[in-house]
Parts: sequence; structure tokens; C-alpha cells
Amino acid sequence: MGEPVKYLLAESDIPTHWVNLLPDLPGTPAPPLHPATLEPLGPDDLAPIFPMGLIEQEVSADPEIEIPAEVREIYKLWRPTPLYRARRLERALGTPAHIYYKYEGVSPAGSHKPNTAVAQAYFNQREGVRKLATETGAGQWGSALALACRLFDLECEVFMVGVSYDQKPYRRAMMETWGATVHRSPSELTEAGRAQAEHSTGSLGIAISEAVETAAGSEDTNYSLGSVLNHVCLHQTVIGQEALKQIELAGEYPDVVVGCVGGGSNFAGLAYPLIRRRLREGLETRFVAAEPAACPTLTRGAYRYDFGDTAGLTPLMPMYTLGHDFVPPPVHAGGLRYHGDAPSLCGLVKEGLVEARAIPQTAAFDAAVRFAQAEGILPAPEPAHALRVVFDEAEAARETGDERVILVNLCGHGHFDMSAYDAYHAGELTDLEFSEADMEAALERLPEVPAPA
Amino acid sequence: MGEPVKYLLAESDIPTHWVNLLPDLPGTPAPPLHPATLEPLGPDDLAPIFPMGLIEQEVSADPEIEIPAEVREIYKLWRPTPLYRARRLERALGTPAHIYYKYEGVSPAGSHKPNTAVAQAYFNQREGVRKLATETGAGQWGSALALACRLFDLECEVFMVGVSYDQKPYRRAMMETWGATVHRSPSELTEAGRAQAEHSTGSLGIAISEAVETAAGSEDTNYSLGSVLNHVCLHQTVIGQEALKQIELAGEYPDVVVGCVGGGSNFAGLAYPLIRRRLREGLETRFVAAEPAACPTLTRGAYRYDFGDTAGLTPLMPMYTLGHDFVPPPVHAGGLRYHGDAPSLCGLVKEGLVEARAIPQTAAFDAAVRFAQAEGILPAPEPAHALRVVFDEAEAARETGDERVILVNLCGHGHFDMSAYDAYHAGELTDLEFSEADMEAALERLPEVPAPA
Repeated sequence: MGEPVKYLLAESDIPTHWVNLLPDLPGTPAPPLHPATLEPLGPDDLAPIFPMGLIEQEVSADPEIEIPAEVREIYKLWRPTPLYRARRLERALGTPAHIYYKYEGVSPAGSHKPNTAVAQAYFNQREGVRKLATETGAGQWGSALALACRLFDLECEVFMVGVSYDQKPYRRAMMETWGATVHRSPSELTEAGRAQAEHSTGSLGIAISEAVETAAGSEDTNYSLGSVLNHVCLHQTVIGQEALKQIELAGEYPDVVVGCVGGGSNFAGLAYPLIRRRLREGLETRFVAAEPAACPTLTRGAYRYDFGDTAGLTPLMPMYTLGHDFVPPPVHAGGLRYHGDAPSLCGLVKEGLVEARAIPQTAAFDAAVRFAQAEGILPAPEPAHALRVVFDEAEAARETGDERVILVNLCGHGHFDMSAYDAYHAGELTDLEFSEADMEAALERLPEVPAPA
Repeated sequence: MGEPVKYLLAESDIPTHWVNLLPDLPGTPAPPLHPATLEPLGPDDLAPIFPMGLIEQEVSADPEIEIPAEVREIYKLWRPTPLYRARRLERALGTPAHIYYKYEGVSPAGSHKPNTAVAQAYFNQREGVRKLATETGAGQWGSALALACRLFDLECEVFMVGVSYDQKPYRRAMMETWGATVHRSPSELTEAGRAQAEHSTGSLGIAISEAVETAAGSEDTNYSLGSVLNHVCLHQTVIGQEALKQIELAGEYPDVVVGCVGGGSNFAGLAYPLIRRRLREGLETRFVAAEPAACPTLTRGAYRYDFGDTAGLTPLMPMYTLGHDFVPPPVHAGGLRYHGDAPSLCGLVKEGLVEARAIPQTAAFDAAVRFAQAEGILPAPEPAHALRVVFDEAEAARETGDERVILVNLCGHGHFDMSAYDAYHAGELTDLEFSEADMEAALERLPEVPAPA
């Protein structure tokens, strides 16, 4: 039968706990601040828009948090996901490196996002919430939450970034099939939307403002965020825990772990369980975060306190940021168009535990097409950025002749992103410019809060 | 951990042989006829467009045909596919029936089609062929062959039915990502295409003529067909063999086996291994083939000798047919818009071993949406027809209170068919009329060949 291509686990191998990396991190993290008072935020400040079950996870000091049976039961619809050894790609690249990819595109929504969407829907439903409001860029997160709300009998209202709403009607149709209501953002439904009417293409920051406003203004509606926050990152750690078991089945351990970063949750999901092992066991594993060169938060942003949204409704968080009203150029990786990043990940980059690399989108699509031609699967534009890093690592391994083991999170398929592939094939895909001047201007508009130490 | 939702197999469980049902069928099958002489066709007549490896399978009397190691190696990229117990759907339907679905949408092309595409590419490459030409309707088959050709370093030229080419640019982009060249059919590149220039929406029959003509006119180009023929149906039997193992893991055996039918290959793939068991062991298993009410080959067609294509370039086969120049209405299930069906399947329907049901497309989409809301996965329009039959069987089980075990082939996802879902949600999807008069006229134009006994 030859060498294995996939490493599969049984449903009984679905993790029983989420990994909370925070207690393992050195030092005391700088607290989020209340958007009005700029004072450290207490759990109660989040209660108007989040259920207590998730707030507890957000501030938890427990290294492990049990996954409710109801959530694990839903995970069984697509988990455990396969870990592939990319044998055909290795041959195509002529590299001695061993390349493994964890494939999260097998979920019904096509990405890793349902891992947290299902958990969030569960805790909200348990506390009597009737509806969730959220934003979505390219549509991966909105699809995931629409699915999760359907599975837990909640209503779902999605504010979709205008440019994606126009370009990706099929993502909208997918959300509607699962019963969600989808609005083009900026909309006329919220103050935040009406104030941004002139920015008709919209942005994630604006859509977040609209969703938060909707949740804050209604008794039985909560808000749901698809990345950035601690509870979101920890829900995703089912990915890394499974991958660890699977790569052990292959008799290996990764030398390099790679993921793309928009808000940080798919990267955290794969990497945090392995970062914990590095910290606890003194391993030498390297971690590389891939972001778009046109939205280079980790590689060129400032480490500052900033809002998560454009209107300044969310708490301020300590993170690398391009400024909350910086509008990233319209790269096809809509899920990576975010001005900030998860505070936990930013801290790891600041400490030098995670390397960050900025990838131009043509280089990402070049890797995506070559990956598809070798392995079959069509990657989403977001993980295409991570694949570019994998290609570079495999090339370096070829030059030095080392059999480095590379593990990457292929966090979603590109079935709803084929217009980007089409543009690439037609030679019409270009590398969009990052404007340092726009970032400087956006950073100058930030409130005066000292950068955390 | 609760009851299992998925029944998974290891890569070592990928079948080692394809099942050839023909030797088990009662009587001698009527032979295909040469399109020019109307004489029984010999293997050599097929040699200009098919490799000998596939021709041997087409006429084989062996009940099992070994799968080459190179093909099994590629199958490992997505096989074995999961068998699901649809526990959430059963609860939603309030049925005592046990519903199992075999999910073939996990292949990179999104359907069962790569099971045969990979085998066909392998046998062609082994015999020195450089390029394969084919047709595609909605794009599932063209995608699968594009992928397979890429994996075996063959060129691929696809004639895509005009209406789908216009409506589904993303399927085209997918084929191009895997390196295929895609033409809108009818094209200016072939005589068959030029002769049909006035039928600008195209049809599968016209596109087949174009591909066959391209292959016949070139030394190093062969033709590849995605359904209907014996060798195609038998390649798909990996589905049913895996499903048998998996449903045994669940401790059950199906009472009813359901699949949709366009040319017959996904139905055959699931059903033929189970039909063989019924024939050999005298089981009572029922088999139901679901076809579109707007293209009701099995339920309303005539059992006649007919061509597989519009221009009359292919052999004549004994089958139920609506007439080879009947142009089916543009239902969204493009993969089911075919005037004929696999001769082997037609024989089984004629003998009463397989029941056929015609499903209107709104009823199919109603089932698809309810399935998606319960199970998450978005079905393609084609298997939505089979799901409608599953719903009806589950309803009947509820009325009689029996725990019938239903097994269905969910042969592909609907990620490239969301415009159809969109139309359904908007209330714009209607049931297209089948014109009996058009069929009668098309049947009158058939050459005079006595119907096989």
C-alpha cells in the first residue's frame, strides 16, 4: 500500500479540552482597557455583548478548559480533520523537507472557523440568548457562525464587508441556506454604518462596529467575534492537539510550524499547543506567522493600545496595529485584511517566540497554484500566504540538505475564491501597495495610552 | 463520546479491485453497434479513441478487476471517503429510519468523478497518450479529468456546455488551475460544433460530439467519458465496496439504496456491489434511481438503440433514451441533463431490479436545504434528487414505524452551484416542463434498429 498520505484519527480522538496558552506565557499580560474610561476592563464590562461562559474563558488562568459534550458532538460532523504528508509536493519541489498539512477545509463551511463558532453558539444558547450578530469579510466567518446558529437554533445576523458582499454572492447564499440574515456593510441599520456611508466598499473594522452596536442595543442579542480574542484562539486549539497526535503517528515532530494571520486564530489554533510544549520542554521548534504585505500588522505595525473596530466601540487591546481606521488595500485574502492581531500572538511576536513574514499576494497565489497541481486541494487565498512560507522553507532545506519537518495549517479551501484564481491566471492579479503614510496618520489618531511594557 | 456520526476506514481499506457487475447479470447483454455499419462493435472499433486497458475493462467478463497501485496511490489523496449516519437529519424528520450517506464531496474536485478520471488518465498515460479530450456539463466531470490529467502529466482539453460555461466561470477557473484548456461548446473548433452554432446554449450531446471528433482526429489524443460506459461504472464501485465495510462497522445492512442518475455512474458506484450481493445471496435490498422530472430518461424514455452524442459519432447502445438530439430543459442539476443512461443500469431497471423515480427540481432543493440545515454539508443539485427520495422513504418509515436502513450516495457538494440555491431562496426556481412531443420527435429520428429483447 506504500507510505501513508493521510494520518487519520477516530471520533474518540477529538480533544476533550481546549488549550489556554496564557498561563504559560512569561510575565503578566497588559489588560484590555474600557473604550470610554481607558481603565482596565472587568468581566462585567463584557456582559452586555458576551455570555458569561465565554467571558470566563476570555480571562481564564486555567491551562485547560473542558469542551462541553454538546460541542464535541457537533465537532463529529467534520472532526478529527486529516493531517496530510505532502509527498507529491515534496517531490515537485525537490526538497528533502517533510511537509505536513493539517486540512481544516473539510468542515461544512470550508474552514477552521466552525471550531469556535459552534462553541460560541453553544454558550450563548445555554444562557438564553436568542440571536447572534457578527461581521464577516470574505465570508468564512459569517458562514461558520450561520452554520453554528442553525445547529443550536439561534438567529444569526451578519454584516458583510461591502466589497465582498458584491464580489461573493455565493458566500451570502451559503449563509442564507443555513438561515442567516446578511446585510451589506456599511448599512443603514446602525449609526456606525450610517456614519461610514461614504466608504461604500466597507471594511472589517466598520462591520464589527455595526455588529457590536446591534448586539449592545438589544436584550436578547449578543455579539460574536471570529478571531483575535483569547476565547476564540483557545477554541481553535483542537487543531494543534489533533495535529500533535497525528504527527506522532508519523513518528515525527515539527521543526517549523507555519500559519497565516488575519486576526490570529487559525495560527493560534495550530501553534499554541506546540508553543506550550516548546516552553515547557525547552524544544527548539520555530513558529512562522504569514501575513499579507499589503496589510503588514506584525511586520510593520506599531505595538500600541488600539480598538478592535473602526468606531471605537470595542475595548482597547495591546497589540501590533496599523491603526483602527486604517483601511487595508482590497487583497483577495479578505480574511487577512485586519488592522490588528490577537494580543496573545502579538506578545509572542514581541518576545521573539514567533517570527512574522509579509507575503505579496502574487507570491501567495503562485504557491497556491503549484500546491493545487501537486496535492489536488485548492487552497483559500489566506492559507496560500502560509504555503508561500512553506515553499521558502522547503527551498532552504534543499540548499542545506536538511530533512526539516514543516507543519502548516491549510485552514480552508478556495471554492468561493475562484475569481481571485481567475484574475491570477489572466495575469491581472497585482501586488497592492501598503501605505506607510496612511498607517502613520491612523496611528496618530489613536488615543494617548502608554504602550504596555 | 456518544454514538458515532462517521464511520471511517484506513488507507489500507481502499479496495484492491473494482467490481464488474456484468457477469452476474442474467442473460446476454445486447451489444453496442458501430455507428456507421450498425453491426455489433468489436474492441478494435474503440481503439482510435480509447486505450486498450480501458477497452478490455469495457468488455470484460471478469467479476473483479485489479486496481493498479498507481491509481490506489492517488485515491489516497481523498479516499476512503466517510460514511455518515445522519442522526441530526433523522431527528429533524422524526423518522425511525436509519439514514446513512456516503460522502464523495471530499475529493479535491468535489464529487465522485475523480474515481474514474484518475483510472482513465492512468491507463491512457501508460499507453503513451499525450492528451485527453472530454465534455463537461455543470463542470464536475471536467474538473475531475483536469485534476487527473495534471496528476499523470497529461494535457486536458474540455468542451464545456455553453450555458454552464457562462453561468459557472468558477468551475472553469478550477479546471484552468489544474492546467486544462476549456472551450465553450458549441465551438468553432470542430465540425460538430460549427454545425450546432445556432444552439448557442449547447448540450452534453453536442459537447460529447466535439470531444470525440477532437480525439478521433489526432494521433496522440484520446477521448474520455465521465459516465454511461461499463468501465466508468466499474471504476466507481470503490464507493459501494467502502460503504459496505462501513455500514458493517455500524452493525447494519441497507434495506434501500438510493442514488441520482445522469449517466448512471455514481448510482452504479454505490449500488452495483450491493446488487451483486442481492443477486448472489438472495437479499431483499431495494434500489432506487432518482432522475430529474424534466429529463426523465428511465421513467418516460423508450428502450431503444441510440447514440451517446448528438452528432451520432459514438456507438449505438441499448438503453432508455429520450432521443440523442432531445435537448433537456436547463435544470440546475447539469450533471443529470442527459438523454440516455448507462446500458447496464437501463437493463436493471427493465428487469425490475432497480426502481426509478422522477423528481421535480423544487422538491430536490427543498430536500437539499433541509439536509444542509440538519447535517451542515451543502449538497450539489444532482444528489439533491436522491435526498428527495430519502426524505420520502424516511416519511414512509415514520408512517409504518419501521426502522428501515437507507443508504444514499451524497456524490458531491454544491459549492459551485450556489446560484441555484440563491434562485431557490428568492422563490425564482421553477419546475421545468418535460416535452413528451419533443421526445417523440427525437425518437422518430432514430435509425431503424430493432429494440434488443
